[in-house]
Amino acid sequence: MTTQTLAFNNGCLDLIDQTRLPTELVTLRCENVEQTFDAIQRLVVRGAPAIGIAAAYGVCLACQPDGKRSRQSYLDAIEYLAKSRPTAVNLFWALDRMNAIVDSVDDDDALPDRLLCEATTIHDEDRQMCRDIGRHGAELLADCHRVLTHCNAGGLATSMWGTALAPIYHLHESGHAIEVFADETRPLLQGARLTAWELSEAGVPVTVLTDSMSGSLLQSGQIDAVIVGADRIAANGDAANKIGTYPLAVLARYHDVPFYVAAPSSTFDRALPSGDLIPIEQRGRDEVANPHGVKLVPDAANVINPAFDVTPADLITAIITERGTVAKPCREKLASLLQW
Amino acid sequence: MTTQTLAFNNGCLDLIDQTRLPTELVTLRCENVEQTFDAIQRLVVRGAPAIGIAAAYGVCLACQPDGKRSRQSYLDAIEYLAKSRPTAVNLFWALDRMNAIVDSVDDDDALPDRLLCEATTIHDEDRQMCRDIGRHGAELLADCHRVLTHCNAGGLATSMWGTALAPIYHLHESGHAIEVFADETRPLLQGARLTAWELSEAGVPVTVLTDSMSGSLLQSGQIDAVIVGADRIAANGDAANKIGTYPLAVLARYHDVPFYVAAPSSTFDRALPSGDLIPIEQRGRDEVANPHGVKLVPDAANVINPAFDVTPADLITAIITERGTVAKPCREKLASLLQW
Repeated sequence: MTTQTLAFNNGCLDLIDQTRLPTELVTLRCENVEQTFDAIQRLVVRGAPAIGIAAAYGVCLACQPDGKRSRQSYLDAIEYLAKSRPTAVNLFWALDRMNAIVDSVDDDDALPDRLLCEATTIHDEDRQMCRDIGRHGAELLADCHRVLTHCNAGGLATSMWGTALAPIYHLHESGHAIEVFADETRPLLQGARLTAWELSEAGVPVTVLTDSMSGSLLQSGQIDAVIVGADRIAANGDAANKIGTYPLAVLARYHDVPFYVAAPSSTFDRALPSGDLIPIEQRGRDEVANPHGVKLVPDAANVINPAFDVTPADLITAIITERGTVAKPCREKLASLLQW
Repeated sequence: MTTQTLAFNNGCLDLIDQTRLPTELVTLRCENVEQTFDAIQRLVVRGAPAIGIAAAYGVCLACQPDGKRSRQSYLDAIEYLAKSRPTAVNLFWALDRMNAIVDSVDDDDALPDRLLCEATTIHDEDRQMCRDIGRHGAELLADCHRVLTHCNAGGLATSMWGTALAPIYHLHESGHAIEVFADETRPLLQGARLTAWELSEAGVPVTVLTDSMSGSLLQSGQIDAVIVGADRIAANGDAANKIGTYPLAVLARYHDVPFYVAAPSSTFDRALPSGDLIPIEQRGRDEVANPHGVKLVPDAANVINPAFDVTPADLITAIITERGTVAKPCREKLASLLQW
């Protein structure tokens, strides 16, 4: 990866503006908490791990109206940023870690540096997570050459290789012939815009298809495995991910093709026993009805726009984490791997 | 329906320009064979039955460069129009009927009127077909209130009510509460643009969703039945229809929801024993990569764009034709109904 999804430079959070890819590669600079909130909500930065890192850095930008960095301004920022998006649990996981620092550091003067240190640690751990998921996932994909993915769970969703794409990058770098079929992923087209862009930049062959075309690719035996990321995984292994993931899991099962979910341990929500309890973000009409200002749907028609769906654990061949792989995931196996 | 998909007026073929819906309701006038060919190829008129009717009228527009309507100019027009699109068999069925008139009428002076009469008959039969499919399909949907459809197999795909939407219109007119969930149907968005438009015009409640959202609607039990049209049905009941139909059939089966295909007898190709022999139109890159002139896919990425997929007969609960319904379709039952 030659580009950095996000970086903390000179006291500011720099983000690749993912809403403008693939047309333009532009960096957006966040100088305060409000700009960070807006960047998360508008999907300038997206992908569960990247949202967590951005939010952690966002806390570091908090200050009072007079410019003073106070304990209360950090607490306010944590509470505020937690409202930016509802589904990805990494957001709350990262904010909880920042909150723990506020709670544990008594010296007000030391707080800013300690918080920045924690955000940087979260960022560093994310890079290591990408490498580890890449290594574990590559073992599962060792015999695969044509892999289907949905949305973007790549470098643009994390700090480096991503989650679902990490095994692809690992295999590509080791000289294994691998090509990716990327669902365009309506409504926001993260597959067409982001996955295709970052894989092309890295020299991995990639083919974009509309979400409606993956069924016939699977039917005709052109796909060896499906691999996706996750925004939240319940304690039993049910996984919420970008809308359109669940139908892929059903199709993969129907065609006896393995279906893998790759996600760091921070994506698991052990407090939720099953996936039906995961809150699903409902987004606005315009993403479906008026993309890029073009009117596609008549005014008299209703529109729905859930951002995620939930794939039950029994459709998941294996979950790949930085700590290892869990085949046929269930609560017991996950609790053992993740030391709950 | 207050609008007419197509009409032959004053020696010209008038078509609603479906590429401009729902933004504008514009009629395109075809005055010659070339304009008709272009209208079919550009999807100004689309939907298997409507393509057949348009092609039949298109033959009537044939003339020599000097304006004379000759037998040879009709034969040339038939050969030319057959190359406009490859998958919908109604095109060839209608052109075969026109060809049979050319073959059977010896009097050159009588030929123009006899050809126009045949095209008008094809058009009239289509209206009756819509009514009959509506009546037969309504029996199957008698207990259904929330129906999912894909692409547009409605009035805009035929001369009146359509095929898949005919039972909906029949039930709506009889006071049965029914609402439709319409897949937007990328890449050309016939569901968002056309199905939503014509159902709204008729007062039928309609909700548009991206193609990736139908899986979670089925998962949550919000759909009572799926009904779609077809572009060509092989002798064993395998049905080619708009790309994205096959995954819906798999999802419907997985969720034990009935999956119906509605099509006139002219859509059956008894010469093809099974669906894997149906030629699938591969369309250009821009429909996926640059819709409405907006660049969605980086240049370095490949794109595929098959216009249709094939649903095996064993995933189809019933095929609804103007001659009646065939549950669990197979060659023997279809041959009996269609008197092969």
